[in-house]
Amino acid sequence: MTGFSFIENGSTTSVPGFKAAGVTAGFKRSGAPDFALLYSEVPADAAGVFTTCLFAAAPVRYCKALLAKGTKLQAVSINSGIANACTGKQGLEGSRKTAEQVASRLNIPVDSVAVASTGRIGVQMDMGLICKGLDLAVPRLSSDGGNDAARAIMTTDTVPKAAAAKVVINGKTVTIGAMTKGAGMINPGLAGLHATMLCFITTDAKIDRALLGNILQESADNSFNRITVDGDMSTNDTVLLLANGLSGVEIKAGTQEEADFKAALLEVTKNLAHRMVKDGEGSTKLVTIEVVNARSVEDARKAAESVANSLLCKTAWFGNDPNWGRIAAALGYSGAEFDPDKCDITIDGVPVMTRGGDAGTPESVAAEQVKKQEFTIRCDFNDGDSSYWVWSSDISYEYVKINADYHT
Amino acid sequence: MTGFSFIENGSTTSVPGFKAAGVTAGFKRSGAPDFALLYSEVPADAAGVFTTCLFAAAPVRYCKALLAKGTKLQAVSINSGIANACTGKQGLEGSRKTAEQVASRLNIPVDSVAVASTGRIGVQMDMGLICKGLDLAVPRLSSDGGNDAARAIMTTDTVPKAAAAKVVINGKTVTIGAMTKGAGMINPGLAGLHATMLCFITTDAKIDRALLGNILQESADNSFNRITVDGDMSTNDTVLLLANGLSGVEIKAGTQEEADFKAALLEVTKNLAHRMVKDGEGSTKLVTIEVVNARSVEDARKAAESVANSLLCKTAWFGNDPNWGRIAAALGYSGAEFDPDKCDITIDGVPVMTRGGDAGTPESVAAEQVKKQEFTIRCDFNDGDSSYWVWSSDISYEYVKINADYHT
Repeated sequence: MTGFSFIENGSTTSVPGFKAAGVTAGFKRSGAPDFALLYSEVPADAAGVFTTCLFAAAPVRYCKALLAKGTKLQAVSINSGIANACTGKQGLEGSRKTAEQVASRLNIPVDSVAVASTGRIGVQMDMGLICKGLDLAVPRLSSDGGNDAARAIMTTDTVPKAAAAKVVINGKTVTIGAMTKGAGMINPGLAGLHATMLCFITTDAKIDRALLGNILQESADNSFNRITVDGDMSTNDTVLLLANGLSGVEIKAGTQEEADFKAALLEVTKNLAHRMVKDGEGSTKLVTIEVVNARSVEDARKAAESVANSLLCKTAWFGNDPNWGRIAAALGYSGAEFDPDKCDITIDGVPVMTRGGDAGTPESVAAEQVKKQEFTIRCDFNDGDSSYWVWSSDISYEYVKINADYHT
Repeated sequence: MTGFSFIENGSTTSVPGFKAAGVTAGFKRSGAPDFALLYSEVPADAAGVFTTCLFAAAPVRYCKALLAKGTKLQAVSINSGIANACTGKQGLEGSRKTAEQVASRLNIPVDSVAVASTGRIGVQMDMGLICKGLDLAVPRLSSDGGNDAARAIMTTDTVPKAAAAKVVINGKTVTIGAMTKGAGMINPGLAGLHATMLCFITTDAKIDRALLGNILQESADNSFNRITVDGDMSTNDTVLLLANGLSGVEIKAGTQEEADFKAALLEVTKNLAHRMVKDGEGSTKLVTIEVVNARSVEDARKAAESVANSLLCKTAWFGNDPNWGRIAAALGYSGAEFDPDKCDITIDGVPVMTRGGDAGTPESVAAEQVKKQEFTIRCDFNDGDSSYWVWSSDISYEYVKINADYHT
């Protein structure tokens, strides 16, 4: 992409007009930062995509209702440690009270405040901790606080994940910033958004709400919805995009400007999605699953996600075992329609299955590919012209340890 | 059930007219028994259910074609160590040659011999080992060889799994015997049979082929298709039922005799299915997931299987963590339709979620339930009158170790 470049140590606050802070409010027993505040100096157009889980958490339901009203947003409050999910009416009340606290301290309308939560399910929001977080965060809001905020939204993540990029659109510079958290409960592939994650994206492009929603969904479908760690989906998945318009660059549907912005946004969201898989709980490898020449995109998607979520494949990758038989089995039970006798599989270019049978590559050669920290499994159905790809990770002892010990 | 009882140390050869043997042919590097032969003194009516994986192994394709012809069966040859899957035309040839060897040594028609394989995918059948297995097994065929055969079909199983029972039907005794293997690659819930497993069932009831097929499918749907270890389905799943008619008890469709036989068969297959989950790779617990009062059986099934296959739930159980939030999340993303605000969840009778929120039970009390080797998670949707249940297991370090090290 011409005129596109990532900003070193970029974050949500690399975008003019946005400030952020990350502080320790006390949600986490560890004393690690656990409360983040994102602030836009001017009201920003906003769009969101959310979990499709029926037990959607209170903040998810609160934000969906807020966005449905079409109000502009000026702040997002995020806590890590309490998910405020399965908390009924009292939970919704907790989200509303949180928004009220933020609004009153920042002197902005309540309806301009979004809230997000991650952490343990079934626990009511602790308003004392929210107030403590705001006491600390409001005075620290700054235009270089994006990386602190990225650190404060982490749960089992081992590294904070923020990014920002500049792109020249129609001769002017537009900036896009973002932060994500998410290391487990991650799965793509259902309707809507399916990565268990929080993501907050900022930009100074000017885009109306309806178009912003379409662009965000498309971007999520091609990045966050392409990743899987464990096949579980959370109650709290939230991706919010705030566009404050300060660049003066207006993006309209069907224009070259829209194409340029979408391409740039996708670069940023793919960058973060890639890092989320690499930071997947206990994961040691990032595996790209490509299914090509399938009869339909749906067939390719089913097949790719089946391999990506197969516990037997994921444990084999952890064990440096190319085990193409498990890949074939996962393709075969995926529900995708294809002719098994035409199927070829390669691992980082090395053939392991040819036309449904052993490609004859010595196992030691195939094993070398699987030992890499990143490799690509390409499944060619030779049976059509549709394709799909997914990023997956391996499953290690550490994954089991983290999830047997961690109380969500 | 009146007139029903399990036979101590029962097996396929507890049924009059059946002989079996289990020997070491050399398929396994360990030197453990790896070849079994099951023999019926008279031609037996037969039915089978098989994997729905598109990459169905050669022996599966061979048996399906054989059963479609409607010939009676007199022998089944089973090897453990080579799956003969993804082996193309040469693989099918391997299955045919195996049947020919068995037929010639037992002096029975080729079309009366079924074959089954389990083990590594993508490796061609070794006819030398088949011949060696037959050299050893044919002279050892005996009416108390059923337990040896059950041991020889094991792969990662830690214990052999055989059973037999007697049931009085219409005043006469009918015997049912069976053996299974299967400890990983186990998943229910797609069309047809979905447990990755081999199972061979014998009976001296007289049942015609068409009815036998219906009875076997119904029995599998309520036993083997109710269990999950890792959500993976194999290329080699095979359940065969041989009925030699020697008891003189004829079972006809729609009669009390049929109801009695089905009930007895289900007792035997559920007994084996239960033991397969308990012997699930690395599993330390057996968890029954019940979903009740759902809008439809399909909703109940989706919800139950979603919890049963959730890695986050399975690792929580391993960690003695009741974590009802993960159960709720899995119900919520299952695709089942229900009202989350009406949902109750209990663990062995102890309420953990009431009407979509925390039931208020102290975590230590709920944790006591999850520490048990067997417990039941009951999800009441209070939203209809349909129900479904599944047996699942936990996922441990040992599961990862087994599957990172074992080359299927």
